[in-house]
Amino acid sequence: MPDTFVLTLKCPDRIGIVAAVSTFLAEQGGWITEAHHHSDDRDGIFFMRQEMRADSIPSSIEEFRERFVPIAERFDMEWKITDRRQPKKVALLVSKHDHCLSDIFHRWRIGEYNIEITSVISNHPDCADLTAMHGIDYHHIPMTKDTKAAAFEEIEQCLEKEQPEVIVLARFMQIMPPHLCAKYDEQIINIHHGFLPSFSGAKPYHAAYDHGVKLIGATCHYVTEDLDAGPIIEQDVIRVDHAASARDMVTRGRDVERSVLSRGVRCHLEDRVIVHNNKTVVFG
Amino acid sequence: MPDTFVLTLKCPDRIGIVAAVSTFLAEQGGWITEAHHHSDDRDGIFFMRQEMRADSIPSSIEEFRERFVPIAERFDMEWKITDRRQPKKVALLVSKHDHCLSDIFHRWRIGEYNIEITSVISNHPDCADLTAMHGIDYHHIPMTKDTKAAAFEEIEQCLEKEQPEVIVLARFMQIMPPHLCAKYDEQIINIHHGFLPSFSGAKPYHAAYDHGVKLIGATCHYVTEDLDAGPIIEQDVIRVDHAASARDMVTRGRDVERSVLSRGVRCHLEDRVIVHNNKTVVFG
Amino acid sequence: MPDTFVLTLKCPDRIGIVAAVSTFLAEQGGWITEAHHHSDDRDGIFFMRQEMRADSIPSSIEEFRERFVPIAERFDMEWKITDRRQPKKVALLVSKHDHCLSDIFHRWRIGEYNIEITSVISNHPDCADLTAMHGIDYHHIPMTKDTKAAAFEEIEQCLEKEQPEVIVLARFMQIMPPHLCAKYDEQIINIHHGFLPSFSGAKPYHAAYDHGVKLIGATCHYVTEDLDAGPIIEQDVIRVDHAASARDMVTRGRDVERSVLSRGVRCHLEDRVIVHNNKTVVFG
Amino acid sequence: MPDTFVLTLKCPDRIGIVAAVSTFLAEQGGWITEAHHHSDDRDGIFFMRQEMRADSIPSSIEEFRERFVPIAERFDMEWKITDRRQPKKVALLVSKHDHCLSDIFHRWRIGEYNIEITSVISNHPDCADLTAMHGIDYHHIPMTKDTKAAAFEEIEQCLEKEQPEVIVLARFMQIMPPHLCAKYDEQIINIHHGFLPSFSGAKPYHAAYDHGVKLIGATCHYVTEDLDAGPIIEQDVIRVDHAASARDMVTRGRDVERSVLSRGVRCHLEDRVIVHNNKTVVFG
Repeated sequence: MPDTFVLTLKCPDRIGIVAAVSTFLAEQGGWITEAHHHSDDRDGIFFMRQEMRADSIPSSIEEFRERFVPIAERFDMEWKITDRRQPKKVALLVSKHDHCLSDIFHRWRIGEYNIEITSVISNHPDCADLTAMHGIDYHHIPMTKDTKAAAFEEIEQCLEKEQPEVIVLARFMQIMPPHLCAKYDEQIINIHHGFLPSFSGAKPYHAAYDHGVKLIGATCHYVTEDLDAGPIIEQDVIRVDHAASARDMVTRGRDVERSVLSRGVRCHLEDRVIVHNNKTVVFG
Repeated sequence: MPDTFVLTLKCPDRIGIVAAVSTFLAEQGGWITEAHHHSDDRDGIFFMRQEMRADSIPSSIEEFRERFVPIAERFDMEWKITDRRQPKKVALLVSKHDHCLSDIFHRWRIGEYNIEITSVISNHPDCADLTAMHGIDYHHIPMTKDTKAAAFEEIEQCLEKEQPEVIVLARFMQIMPPHLCAKYDEQIINIHHGFLPSFSGAKPYHAAYDHGVKLIGATCHYVTEDLDAGPIIEQDVIRVDHAASARDMVTRGRDVERSVLSRGVRCHLEDRVIVHNNKTVVFG
Repeated sequence: MPDTFVLTLKCPDRIGIVAAVSTFLAEQGGWITEAHHHSDDRDGIFFMRQEMRADSIPSSIEEFRERFVPIAERFDMEWKITDRRQPKKVALLVSKHDHCLSDIFHRWRIGEYNIEITSVISNHPDCADLTAMHGIDYHHIPMTKDTKAAAFEEIEQCLEKEQPEVIVLARFMQIMPPHLCAKYDEQIINIHHGFLPSFSGAKPYHAAYDHGVKLIGATCHYVTEDLDAGPIIEQDVIRVDHAASARDMVTRGRDVERSVLSRGVRCHLEDRVIVHNNKTVVFG
Repeated sequence: MPDTFVLTLKCPDRIGIVAAVSTFLAEQGGWITEAHHHSDDRDGIFFMRQEMRADSIPSSIEEFRERFVPIAERFDMEWKITDRRQPKKVALLVSKHDHCLSDIFHRWRIGEYNIEITSVISNHPDCADLTAMHGIDYHHIPMTKDTKAAAFEEIEQCLEKEQPEVIVLARFMQIMPPHLCAKYDEQIINIHHGFLPSFSGAKPYHAAYDHGVKLIGATCHYVTEDLDAGPIIEQDVIRVDHAASARDMVTRGRDVERSVLSRGVRCHLEDRVIVHNNKTVVFG
């Protein structure tokens, strides 16, 4: 993991923001390793991400944050400063399919993701063994039409207890209730197995097959109350032709699903995503 | 241009079709240069394309067609046999933008497309000079809300007179009337500047921008009465990020529009596309 | 797994091959689910792959093969008929990195690959735990400059004993001795972490970094005596920019390595690859 | 064209550069529309590009440049400030093939490139008509083995007279003499029809065909004395399979050549490319 601090912010755009922030960082001794900004012309919003070597900042992260407050107030910023050495706590929700789960486990195991996995929560038993292999707790919470409310209450209790900062729906085939979407705003990441806004909802590969599209895709997005309509973090597609059945699309789609999810999650974990107006700025 | 004949067919699937066709071709002396087939399991339909050296067939194409009739009848085939040395007559319809038109002119000029361009028809004068440069007739047929019906009648008369086999809507921003769609079934090719079925209709790039998608695309399809919902021939996408304005998307989209249209048109010209059930089999 | 037989062949090209083969298949009752052929104009070689439903062939696979012999002899074919329901025995060789190994394990576990893994062989202990998790034997055969010959002898004995049909070098960072390359001709599949023929040999990402290329890639190929120069089965690339360090390339390259290897291995397992003249025909 | 000024610079990396530059820009009233920086860790070099609205700078560009001098000296910068409203003068060199030339003409005609084309220079007469259509001067300078030196002298005289800022080799199939490479350092842009460093030199598609690669590509780079080894600006690839002949690769390659060249040229024209150590930083 890089030994860095990350500052991200958004605020109304005006002249002097970059000057103020970079002068501040220079005064603090900050050795910047990566810097991005973006001005949204239409909405008049300015976005920034600065990554700097932690050892170049003599103060603690708490002091560093405190010193930044006056600038933040002056420019009316929404902001945060995080320490990339600190693993983020992540809960994983799955149903039956384990290709995304397996991929996330691997990236965690080889240190590509700096995370602590709080637990795996599932409405099915299928991924229990794989999870056990990795020494992670598995909460099997069965869910029928009638028990859905109770089951989600149980899920909420798990989350309450384990306090993850990020919730990844790694092919969790249930719709999150609105109050959980609101509670974990910009913290729940979903992978949808379709190229949104096409083919939202259930059975997207079958819909793609029926339409005769020549590319199928996957979309990683934050979960909001509007089904499959939250801010898109990452998307990708792969080529299919007339010879591909809906079943073939399901098989081949797995590869694009997990690569899109893995990139989306990585961007979120590295604080590269800023949400505004149901869209994302992703500083790649 | 390859000196070849092309046989394409579709028929109900059953054992023995390939054997019958390939035995026939071998008997005729046909030296096959390319062969493709596809069985649609769901609908029970068989599709085939065979390309063979014209000089390996001692008979004329008319005799060759005649000899094929008994096999076609036996298996209840829809079929055709075409001569790739024979240029196809193509009409081009455009509005103001010339990037697709310019690309088609270039491919025709360097012999990549074996076509005869009957004329360019437009509701605007913008592309007249470029067309004149290439020595092609330009029919400027202005179109307002009130004159639309009359204008399309005039277009139809042009087409009647010039008898194109293919009509390419190379960014023609008007909706073809249903009776023309029906009359030129599977002969009108459109390029839509969006990744269908997302963003059909007007201003697709602006819709893509508003949705915050991370890839924008273009779709080449046959025109049917249902707006932007005819059989898809080819699609592709390019990556955009938060920094791209709707205007940037329009600019960058031009490149994907013309490459998608050029591939779709090429496949059609080379008789590589077979339509079934509002979808295409494309033998690439 | 599809319940199918696969016929693959190559032979000198001439008129009548397809007719003979498809007539034979029709006589045997073969319901063809997929068919491909290719004529190599330059070398005058014909290639074919036919896949047919096993239950449509009333005879055993042995009888079926026997009946095909006269045709094979008549056209001087190199050919084989395989049963896709029969798992192929696969040995996996790795060094320290487990991203390709982990991916193959996953595809095997979910039934995407119809294989039996005979064992994992490694010159390092790093992948032992992951292998044990999956209940597969792990042969740790350490290798130094001085013990290389003895170590490869030990590897050969493992292979002799376990009789795999396919040997996958899933990031095995040692050069196979020529006699093993010859013994397992067209049976050893390697993933090279560079876009061959660029950047063969050691440290390809560092070479790519030094050259300032804008795309990095991976290549899946059969292993021959010529280092990284065997017939290419599959390749792919991903985009990098000036901000990517050699170390970043190593990280991002993992994703393209495993997707390229997985596609190459799948094509081989499904008998879609025919080698000729140090190149491959891949019937996708 | 955007009404903007562009500042680009490189200098030894140290703390305070961004602060100094952005404070300066804020003092001048500069409304930044796009900003990028990059630190090359290995070489300790810092790169920056700032684009700002011209109407936000009350001074002339000359005064603006003058005011920047002290900062540039303090940090030992190589830098320039350009006005994007000012068209760049471009000379185009071609041989027989016109697909890249035609594409550049189109982008110029529709205003995608803000350039003035000084002339087209060619060792063949083939592109004369297309050039005349566009009202541009065409210098046909035939070149044989024996007349090469004299021909390049004549080319040099044209360039001397017409004073282009950029020279685009739009499929010019002759090797530029070293003294011209040196004279127009970082000003000559070439498109190579191969994925460098693979397949440099002549007949790259034939070499790609012989190697059986599964992707073919094109590379846009600055020309240096080392043949096809100058700093790479942009690259891309397209997929080919066993069915593609070397001739097919030539045809399909045209599309990737012109899209790669067009992107490379656009980046150069918009001052997005900074060269260092035979590599490029491209602020996309």
